Amino acid sequence: MILTVTLNFALDVTYAAPRVRWRYTNRVSVVGRRAGGKGVNVARVLHALGRDAVVTGLAGGATGAAARAELERSGLIDATVSVRDQSRVTIIVVERDGEVTGFSEPGPEVTAAEWARLLARFHELLGAAEAVVLSGSLPPGVPLDAYAQLIAIAAAADLPVLLDAEQEALARGVAAGPQLVKINAGELDGFAPGLDVFSGAARLRAAGAGAVVVSEGPAGLVGLTESGAWRAVPPRVSGGNPTGAGDAAAAALVAGMVDASPWPQRLSDAAALSAAAVSAPMAGSFDQSAYRRLRGEVIVREQTPP
Amino acid sequence: MILTVTLNFALDVTYAAPRVRWRYTNRVSVVGRRAGGKGVNVARVLHALGRDAVVTGLAGGATGAAARAELERSGLIDATVSVRDQSRVTIIVVERDGEVTGFSEPGPEVTAAEWARLLARFHELLGAAEAVVLSGSLPPGVPLDAYAQLIAIAAAADLPVLLDAEQEALARGVAAGPQLVKINAGELDGFAPGLDVFSGAARLRAAGAGAVVVSEGPAGLVGLTESGAWRAVPPRVSGGNPTGAGDAAAAALVAGMVDASPWPQRLSDAAALSAAAVSAPMAGSFDQSAYRRLRGEVIVREQTPP
Repeated sequence: MILTVTLNFALDVTYAAPRVRWRYTNRVSVVGRRAGGKGVNVARVLHALGRDAVVTGLAGGATGAAARAELERSGLIDATVSVRDQSRVTIIVVERDGEVTGFSEPGPEVTAAEWARLLARFHELLGAAEAVVLSGSLPPGVPLDAYAQLIAIAAAADLPVLLDAEQEALARGVAAGPQLVKINAGELDGFAPGLDVFSGAARLRAAGAGAVVVSEGPAGLVGLTESGAWRAVPPRVSGGNPTGAGDAAAAALVAGMVDASPWPQRLSDAAALSAAAVSAPMAGSFDQSAYRRLRGEVIVREQTPP
Repeated sequence: MILTVTLNFALDVTYAAPRVRWRYTNRVSVVGRRAGGKGVNVARVLHALGRDAVVTGLAGGATGAAARAELERSGLIDATVSVRDQSRVTIIVVERDGEVTGFSEPGPEVTAAEWARLLARFHELLGAAEAVVLSGSLPPGVPLDAYAQLIAIAAAADLPVLLDAEQEALARGVAAGPQLVKINAGELDGFAPGLDVFSGAARLRAAGAGAVVVSEGPAGLVGLTESGAWRAVPPRVSGGNPTGAGDAAAAALVAGMVDASPWPQRLSDAAALSAAAVSAPMAGSFDQSAYRRLRGEVIVREQTPP
């Protein structure tokens, strides 16, 4: 199985409104209440691809309980650790034209004892894992080097790690040597301001990442590894909801890591799955027939590494 | 005690964001999670004025439980009836400049048996009540003449009712003869399109309301009763959050009804309390010192009735 870690586990509430009137009260319909957070989205996509995925992270309160119950109903394996404070809620408002506005709470206040329990649970779960995905923000109280600690534990168990983080959590995590860092262009610019995407990716490799994949939205993906550099460009997809497209790419990349597929194949699958996720209404979902079609249509070109 | 009825009982979640970027994901802080709905706001204001207030309505699920727990913590008396479906959540996003955007879920699906239990509970609670406040929207499944049914039960117990509703719930409710209808100018225009405020209020009286008070936002209140017509104008209040200002006015009006104060006094108190509520960050709260100051500054003028 693939173990996904969502330290800032969430209850995602998706609302639909024909058109939001900002600065008024809007009557909305509830599209869904689901477990959320980037690692959960990755696990959902892996499950839909027929892979076993286990979700761990820190879950608390009524919102955490509601999100955990939904995980189970969706066929995902809930291995979250309970915390006393309440898990965050993320509100996602989708308008009829597909535009999305989100409101994201900061997350529960995590104690040192709770963090220690997460580390112990993570260690136990590695026994059955083939790969690990670490993604998303850190809730208050979790140490800033949380991802570095988890990468060190996975390395001791000889398991590959995909890291998807930003800012301080990324900077500290990458120093622990994850096999793959998958981020978007904005997050890369936060790490290596002003650099072009290949130079930024090279700086991440120099900082400790084995390989780097950068998503550039509809323009596709850039990959930089020790063996080469590629750009994967999907066909244009119209409309849709880009939330979770990066998580779909992460799911394809970790699956390719487990299968040891060639890099051009991994990037092609990731670009196609990411584009197919844009067509689906909620993060963590993708359009299976669009994925099958798009896989044949992504163009992967080798690039000259910087 | 004063019995307030909130059929569409809610969990109000208030977020603060420096400035919302529409169509992006916004990190927000959680200002509060409180019981909500117009009747709850009225009860909160009555409690702060030193009056006993009891809250009834239909509450369900994890959101209903969280809202009920907060009621108790706030010193209000929870006499809600449990329903199977989950109570709605209302999201209120307050920006640094005081601008407010709300997202309001439709509410739980209420069964006929649940509605019958609400009627029975309402009947029991009237034994200790001096007046009744019926306010806000109806959740799905509750009959459109819900307020008419409740007004008939209160009338049989010889208790005065303040009704604050709109659209069909207002039209059907007013026909049952509530002692006072309190609505805002937009709601009045929905009932009597195109009429000026005094003519619209007269039409509501003709339809069954004993007296009518219409709030016109910062411009103050208009009152029309069998004994006269008045306009109450508060001093200008800068900034603030207008959500709940109408509920503060309703609280003052029902208190005046219980005390049998003269109408100019009731309108003056209601205009002052409404203005003092605008200065407070959350619906159901008001600034006590602003209220004391504003009470002396409201100008009430008798008008020629239409």
